[in-house]
Amino acid sequence: MDLKKAGIGEGISEVIVTTKSASGKPNAAPIGIITEINEEGERKHFVKLYKGSQTLANVLATTTLAANVTNDAVVFVKAAFENLSEDYFTVFVDMPVLTKANAWIVFTSVAVEESRDYFRFQLTPQAVEIRRKEVKAINRGLNAVIEAAILATRYYLTEDEQEKEEMKRLMERYADIVKKCGGRREKEAMSILHEKFFKGVDF
Amino acid sequence: MDLKKAGIGEGISEVIVTTKSASGKPNAAPIGIITEINEEGERKHFVKLYKGSQTLANVLATTTLAANVTNDAVVFVKAAFENLSEDYFTVFVDMPVLTKANAWIVFTSVAVEESRDYFRFQLTPQAVEIRRKEVKAINRGLNAVIEAAILATRYYLTEDEQEKEEMKRLMERYADIVKKCGGRREKEAMSILHEKFFKGVDF
Repeated sequence: MDLKKAGIGEGISEVIVTTKSASGKPNAAPIGIITEINEEGERKHFVKLYKGSQTLANVLATTTLAANVTNDAVVFVKAAFENLSEDYFTVFVDMPVLTKANAWIVFTSVAVEESRDYFRFQLTPQAVEIRRKEVKAINRGLNAVIEAAILATRYYLTEDEQEKEEMKRLMERYADIVKKCGGRREKEAMSILHEKFFKGVDF
Repeated sequence: MDLKKAGIGEGISEVIVTTKSASGKPNAAPIGIITEINEEGERKHFVKLYKGSQTLANVLATTTLAANVTNDAVVFVKAAFENLSEDYFTVFVDMPVLTKANAWIVFTSVAVEESRDYFRFQLTPQAVEIRRKEVKAINRGLNAVIEAAILATRYYLTEDEQEKEEMKRLMERYADIVKKCGGRREKEAMSILHEKFFKGVDF
């Protein structure tokens, strides 16, 4: 099953991973799907899930996850810092997925590595649905939101003061890019990010 | 004419702008198309073209430019630092455009501002063709290439040593992101960028 047409290309594809708990409660989190292509052109998909995350707990319980391909900056930020409300979700082959995503890929998973901080799973696609194709020019603001959200999730894990200062400088840079290049969806995402996470940080 | 379906959304859309000289010679350069939406929902498109650029000379001569919407990191880097060879181009309503782009938009232009460094033009779409719709997950490597290319074009314009040091730090960061997250197209683009531009820079 070639997932390139569903938006999952070589390298790391930033998607919203949706999972469900053993009791069926849906969860969503922004996560990278790793795609490696070997010399014979075979594609392998992997994901690293960090210990302590709901996504990992759900995957250990159900061995299944769905990748939701989307460009929506607001969904990335909300999925990172809050629980998405039920009306974001629909069901695809018995898995919770995001109604507005451009594509859904349901994977089964096998743990192939465990480190102190994470499990690494190899993923096998079980079902794919392409919901909406589009043309979209690159917007630097969209990626600045993604980079800022990643920084934000790391900021409180870092204890090194110099690294924290560097992170604040980068965050200001990303905020400037969003202000200059983003559309209203990117600006809304950045303001949610500030609201959620940077309240306590002195900029 | 709503250009959102052709990939030109609110904010700044990073595209390859193709133009031709008075004698018909094609040119391509990565440029941002600025889209503003007012409270009545009307969209206006603008572009800033810098003095000394071939794109500006061509637009002053012909009043016309084409926006080529693409995700191809290699094309962005090549268009920034070399002349694209003729086999990249085809013709759409009498304008040179990139054969492999996902959409073409031909605009006429009217200069609305002149500053020391640039002209600002308001753009009016004359013709649109959507060539290929797709689904594509966000790849941090792709945008890292774009950010690195922008930095590269600015590096030699900067005389402030501290700013240059900061640019080198950022460039290393972007190179790391491409290495970690990019597919082979992003990695190829980054290696062209290093080859073309950073040969003389001590990293």
